[in-house]
Formats: sequence, structure tokens, C-alpha cells
Amino acid sequence: MGSQRLTAQGIPSLLRKRGVRIAVIGLGRIGLPTAAMFAKAGAIVTGVDLKKEVVELTNAGRCWLTDEPGLADMVKEAAKTGNLRATTDAKEAISKADFAIICVPTPVYETKTPDYSAVQKAARTVGTSLKRGSVVIVESTVGPGVTEDMVGPILEDESGLRAGIDFGLVSCPERSDPGNIMQNMKSLPRIIGGLGESATDVTVALYEAALGVKAIRVSDPKTANAAKLTENLFRDVNIALANEFALLFEELGVDAIEVINACASKYNFLPHYPGIGVGGPCLPANSYYLISEGVKSGNIPYLIRMAREINDRMPDHAVELVGEALNEAGKTVKGSRIAILGVAYKPNIKDVQLTPVERVVTRLREMGGKIEIYDPMYKGEEVFGLKAKPTLEAAVRSADCILVGTAHDEFRHLDLEELSHLTRARAGFVDARNVVSPEAVVKAGFAFRGVGRRAR
Amino acid sequence: MGSQRLTAQGIPSLLRKRGVRIAVIGLGRIGLPTAAMFAKAGAIVTGVDLKKEVVELTNAGRCWLTDEPGLADMVKEAAKTGNLRATTDAKEAISKADFAIICVPTPVYETKTPDYSAVQKAARTVGTSLKRGSVVIVESTVGPGVTEDMVGPILEDESGLRAGIDFGLVSCPERSDPGNIMQNMKSLPRIIGGLGESATDVTVALYEAALGVKAIRVSDPKTANAAKLTENLFRDVNIALANEFALLFEELGVDAIEVINACASKYNFLPHYPGIGVGGPCLPANSYYLISEGVKSGNIPYLIRMAREINDRMPDHAVELVGEALNEAGKTVKGSRIAILGVAYKPNIKDVQLTPVERVVTRLREMGGKIEIYDPMYKGEEVFGLKAKPTLEAAVRSADCILVGTAHDEFRHLDLEELSHLTRARAGFVDARNVVSPEAVVKAGFAFRGVGRRAR
Repeated sequence: MGSQRLTAQGIPSLLRKRGVRIAVIGLGRIGLPTAAMFAKAGAIVTGVDLKKEVVELTNAGRCWLTDEPGLADMVKEAAKTGNLRATTDAKEAISKADFAIICVPTPVYETKTPDYSAVQKAARTVGTSLKRGSVVIVESTVGPGVTEDMVGPILEDESGLRAGIDFGLVSCPERSDPGNIMQNMKSLPRIIGGLGESATDVTVALYEAALGVKAIRVSDPKTANAAKLTENLFRDVNIALANEFALLFEELGVDAIEVINACASKYNFLPHYPGIGVGGPCLPANSYYLISEGVKSGNIPYLIRMAREINDRMPDHAVELVGEALNEAGKTVKGSRIAILGVAYKPNIKDVQLTPVERVVTRLREMGGKIEIYDPMYKGEEVFGLKAKPTLEAAVRSADCILVGTAHDEFRHLDLEELSHLTRARAGFVDARNVVSPEAVVKAGFAFRGVGRRAR
Repeated sequence: MGSQRLTAQGIPSLLRKRGVRIAVIGLGRIGLPTAAMFAKAGAIVTGVDLKKEVVELTNAGRCWLTDEPGLADMVKEAAKTGNLRATTDAKEAISKADFAIICVPTPVYETKTPDYSAVQKAARTVGTSLKRGSVVIVESTVGPGVTEDMVGPILEDESGLRAGIDFGLVSCPERSDPGNIMQNMKSLPRIIGGLGESATDVTVALYEAALGVKAIRVSDPKTANAAKLTENLFRDVNIALANEFALLFEELGVDAIEVINACASKYNFLPHYPGIGVGGPCLPANSYYLISEGVKSGNIPYLIRMAREINDRMPDHAVELVGEALNEAGKTVKGSRIAILGVAYKPNIKDVQLTPVERVVTRLREMGGKIEIYDPMYKGEEVFGLKAKPTLEAAVRSADCILVGTAHDEFRHLDLEELSHLTRARAGFVDARNVVSPEAVVKAGFAFRGVGRRAR
């Protein structure tokens, strides 16, 4: 490396002396917690974001993310100590930084091909102001090879410096689970692979010292990126497998949840549960980063692709179950009031990115259903062009069918008797997230259907 | 139930007083340990098998199965105490039995449809002599519904009794892992679902009292059978996923083993490893029991079917790797001596049922390779029409390529330097089971290839 200022051994004391300067590119769900954690550990962090509102809030010590426990206090504290500030102007931040950490989103286009435009833009921005001896870290989830073959060349072109020689280029993919990010960042080992031996050394030292986590050093950036995709695709494929079992077992009159819970007693089984589908910024997109590399190399990962298709089909199955439950109650979707409990893509977070519930709502509306939404994270807000109700009761009142779309904690202890008094007689109840006891729902008088559940 | 002799409460003391009579149908890898375990617990067990040799050995206190630690002593002891005897004549055994346990194999035909002929035959045999008040337990792995809709009607037809009323019909699928069966039988919970409330009660009591395991009671036989298939298919699909990653990562120059080991640091990841394919009596067959029910109900489990196809393709990939390693050494398969280390379908057992190594051997021979086999479980025995070598050295001497086909313990600590002196210069080395360090193999002078391994 050009600079000898950064050494792995020196990182811990440099951190304590407020001598490590970090630019975090993107203050989103990953970038903001990352910036706050490094600031807390003593680094001088500048968060760069295009959104003026996010920059202003952060500089005021306020946190735009409301569903990550512990984050608000940390942002407040970091702004107060001056260790964290935010800006829309990347130039100065990057020109002074020892580390530039890219935390921008990597979605997919509607054609299901990776959209790396934000990463490319971030790389151009970083490259323009990159100083010799610094380290560029890619935390964004990308396909194996994207760091070396796309990010690296952009940085070299813009800076005139050489990756792995004049500056370090390291993949350290974020592995956090939205809603638990602060906890994950402090405990989940990081997988780190880089170009440039000493740059990788100091990156390992930085994450271990600042976050207190173990670093697993792998051969190169593409291995680190492959690992991130592998662990997420493992989850996507296994949820698809649970969904495939659910669809088949419904047909065979077997309860998939009972089956999966019984299997969980085996030492080499890891339970995954069926549901309404898979949403969020990661799982619905990550497969396509690998599929895309596979297609390019003439080696298509069929199983991974099939899994995506199965998970993408689940919202339609939830719509079918609504139709069945209403049918049992002697009603049609057309003209029925349907209360959707939960729109977020996963429990206890405020995020509807690629939520499978949206397709369910859209299709039920197309079929002539009248939709009411309630979600504890979106009380009174507009979601999918509808105004969410302020209370559960308001959404459920006079409903012909209830559908649970998100397993928020609040829905795990529904008073089914009370609900049955609020709804019309007779109403359907579709549990697309396995939060209720089918027997209790039937006892309360509903026509019950559930994903993976035998009709009762 | 017709008989009041058997009650759940009474089972433990009845067992101690040698008052429980059990007929075990089939003294195979599951039946013999089952018979021996129940005999040890105090039951009077008659094992029924068509093979005269098995019956004679068992009655002499000798054990035909040589690779299940602890079984031989138990069979010897059970024969000595008289609690276990074997016969080819089912009639008397069944007519006196409180429990008839069906432990016969359920393979698939070459057309990949379930072959339930042994179960049907066992059901006819049991039905002919079935006494009122007894319980028929199906331990064989079958599709959901097969116990109720195939075994039940045969038993009713032959006996004139009614399932769930005059006799109990219970599915209690075996869940053991060959090679660890004695350990599994004592520790792994059993999943039990039956027709006839009290029959299910006494079956739960029998397994808990005799084997000391927890029983998980499920709604009905088909739920128990679905659970057995679900846990095995989870494994088959996840091995296929590991194989899919391996094929793609080889292409991208990423080491799949390094990736999977890194992923293992995440709390919701369960590592499975790629390899030469999946063999044995269970995994290559079990998917088809479910696929078959799916096809009948118009609901094809695509993911499960795709997984089978991926795993079935892996032996061909191992052959490709042999060709690549030989090519790097400047040789062709044709005319080369290829030493196959390990033919068993899994480590440390003596079983070549549906072993993926067989296809590798067949194809390499078709291509003109000269095959030598060494497997510690088959020293000097005939396998796939070849006489296995008595020692590793004899197999490897003058070889142009070594292929590890089974991860037997013996192959985990190969002296690679010594091997390189025995083989011809230069030789290939293909690790199809991830037992060696690629770097060490290369250092010893071999041209290395491995499933999921980057070529070095």
C-alpha cells in the first residue's frame, strides 16, 4: 500500500485516539447503523447520502429509521460527540477517508437482472476523490466478481490508482437481518476478502476492533460475496421448499406446520415455514445476482431459480385461500370487505419493499374486493394507495374475511372471539403466516384457511 | 380396541415382566436393530425374514450386519436370553403378537415410481394371522396415505377385522442414520400417528418405555409419514443446493467449501456439502414417494424433483473431473489406471446400495479406464464385478489418477507424499468428497480437481 499510516496492529489504538476516518456511502438501513457503530467505536465518520432529508436528520442527531431498536440513541450520541456527521457532498469526506464503505442498495430490474447502478455510481463518486493508501470496502450485496470486475475498474479509471496496490479493495458483505441489525452487527462474524494483503489486514482489524465481532478471512472479494449470497439463497430455497410442502400437504390433507414441527426434533433438520411469500430488499433479489453470473458462465442454477418462482407464486395462493374461505362462508371476493392484517414484508419492521402482501391486495382489489389495511407500523399512513386504519378494530369491523399478511407480534395473540363479533356473520379467516391456532379460529365461528393448513 | 390387555399405563410393567409380544417383519438394517432393542427392553420378539441365512445367524446369536456399532453384542445377548428368536414362518409369530412391526424396504422402480411390493406382501402376511386387539406398526418409509389407503385395506381384507377399531394401525417411521442406528434408536424422538386412539396410546407407551425416547404424537399416519419424508427431502434438496453452488462456483473460480464454511458462522445457516452424489436406500428413493402422491393429486413438487436430478448428475461431474485431472497430467482416461478409494454410499458403512460411485466406475470403464478399487469395508471382496484390493497401496500403485469416492475415516489422513511415490508420475487426484486439502495434494505433485474446488 502507498500509505503506512494504517496497520492492522495500529487500528485499535488509532480508533481510541479518534484517528480513523471513515466515509460511509449510503445512509440506508445498513449504512446508517454501520456509520453509527463505527462512530461509537471512536472513528470519525462521515455519512454520505443523496437524500437531503436523511442528511439533515442525521446531523440533528435524529434517526430516520424507526424500527431498529437501539439505533436512535446511538445516532443521537454520535451526532453529539461529533464522531458522526452527514453530507450530500461526497468529495471532501472521501478525500480524507482511510476507509470508504459502500452501503448502497442493489435491487433487481423488473426483468430480474441485477441493478448495480447505485454501486457503480458510488464507485465513480469514491474513485474521483480516492486517496492513495485508503481502502474501499463493499458492504453492498453483489454477485461474485462484481467487486473485482466492476467496482475495481471504475475506481481505477476515476482515480488513476491501482486496486490492491495503490488502494485496497475489500468485500465485507453486510449479513444483518432487518429489525435486528444492531444486535447482528455486534455479534455476527464478518466475512472479509480483499485485493491487497495489508488492506485486507487492516479491514479485518477495523471490524474486529470497532464492532467486536470475529472476522472470517476468505481468499478474495468474490468468495466473500459468494458466501453472502449462499447464506441468503439457502434461506430462500428452504422457504420455497417449505412452500412446496405446504401446497402439496394441503392437497393431501396433511398439516404442514405439524409436520415441520415434528421434523424439528431431528438433529440435522432446520425448520423453515411456509407463508404468503418472500419480500424485502434481499431475498427476492439476491438469487438473481447469482443466476446472472450463472447465465453468463453457461451454468444455470436451476434449483435457485425454481425456488424463486415458487416463492413468487405464494401471494396468488393466499388469494386462492381467501376465495376458498369466502366461498365456505357463502360469499364471493367481489363485494366482500377484506381486512388485511399486516403489510410489512416481515414481522415488527416498517418496510414494504417487495412485500408479497402488495400483490395479494392488488389481486383482491382487481377481483372486486374492498380492502381495509391495518398494520401497527403504518397506522393511518398511506400504503399501496390505501389509507391504513388506525386500529385493528376499525379494519376488521364488518369484514367478510380477515387475512393475516405479516406475523407482527400483535397478531400472535388475537382475541378471536372479539374479532368474530366485529366481523360480519359468517366471515372467513385466512392465516398466511401461521400465527393462529386453526382450531381456535374455527371455534370462534370463522371459515378457516391457512397456508399449509388442512381445511378444518 | 377389542383387547383390553394392552394399556398405555400397563406397558412399562408388562415389558419388565416379559409380557409384551412383538413380531418384527424384516430383519434388515432397521428391522434387526429394532428387534434387538425391543428384546433387550424385555419384550418377547420374533423376527420374521424371508432369508434363511439371516434367520439362522440371528438364532445363533450372530449378526449379519457388521457396521452398526453395538448391535452384534445386543443380538448375541438377546438370542441368549431367548427374548429374540427369528423365523421364516410368520404365521405363528403374528398370531401371538401384540405388536406387528413392518420394517421391510421400500425402494423405487427404475421408472422412479415407488415399489411398495414388499410392504404389500408384509401386510398380506400380517393380515392373514392378525389377532383382534393387536397393533400393526409401519416403520417402513412410505408416502403420506399409504398406511391408511394401501396397508390398512390389505390388512382388513386378509383379516376380516377393521383398522382403527378391531386392530390398531400406526405409522412410526424409522428415522435412523445407517452406521449410527443404535445411537439414533436410543436418542432420536419418534413421530407416531395412528388410527385407533388407544392403539396409538400403547404404541407411544411402547416406544417410550422400551427405547427410552420421546414420542411426538401427530394427527394420523399420513402426518407421520409426511414428516419422515420431509426431513429426508430437506437433506436431499440441501445437498442438491450445495452441488448446484459447487458446479457454479467451480466455473467462477470460487471454492465452494470455503464459502460454505464461512456461511456456517450464521445462526440460521445449516451447512451441507457438495460431493459425488447421493446414495443409499433412503434419499435417492424417498423423494419419489412424495412426487408420486403429488403427481396423483395434480400438484407436482418441482423443487424436490429438480434436486433429485441435480444429485443424480453428480457422478458424471466426478467423471469430468477425472478427465480434467488426467488431461492436466497429459493423459487420457483411455488406458489410464484409476484407483477408486471408497465405493460405499456413505462413510464408515458397508453398503453400496445406489452408491453414486458405481456410475463413476461404469462410465470410466466404458471410456477405457482401468479401474482398481479399494474400500476398507470391502477388502478383497467383489464389487461392481471387480475384485477390490486388499490394501490402499495395492490399489494406488502405478495409478494415473486417484479418485476419493467415499469419505471413510481412513481417507481423511492420507499420506499424500507416500501416495505420490506409489502412483505414476504425473498422476491426477480427484477429491469428490472433500477429504483432502487441495494445497497439500498439489504440493505432493498431483494434478488436483475436486467437486466445488477451484482448479489449483
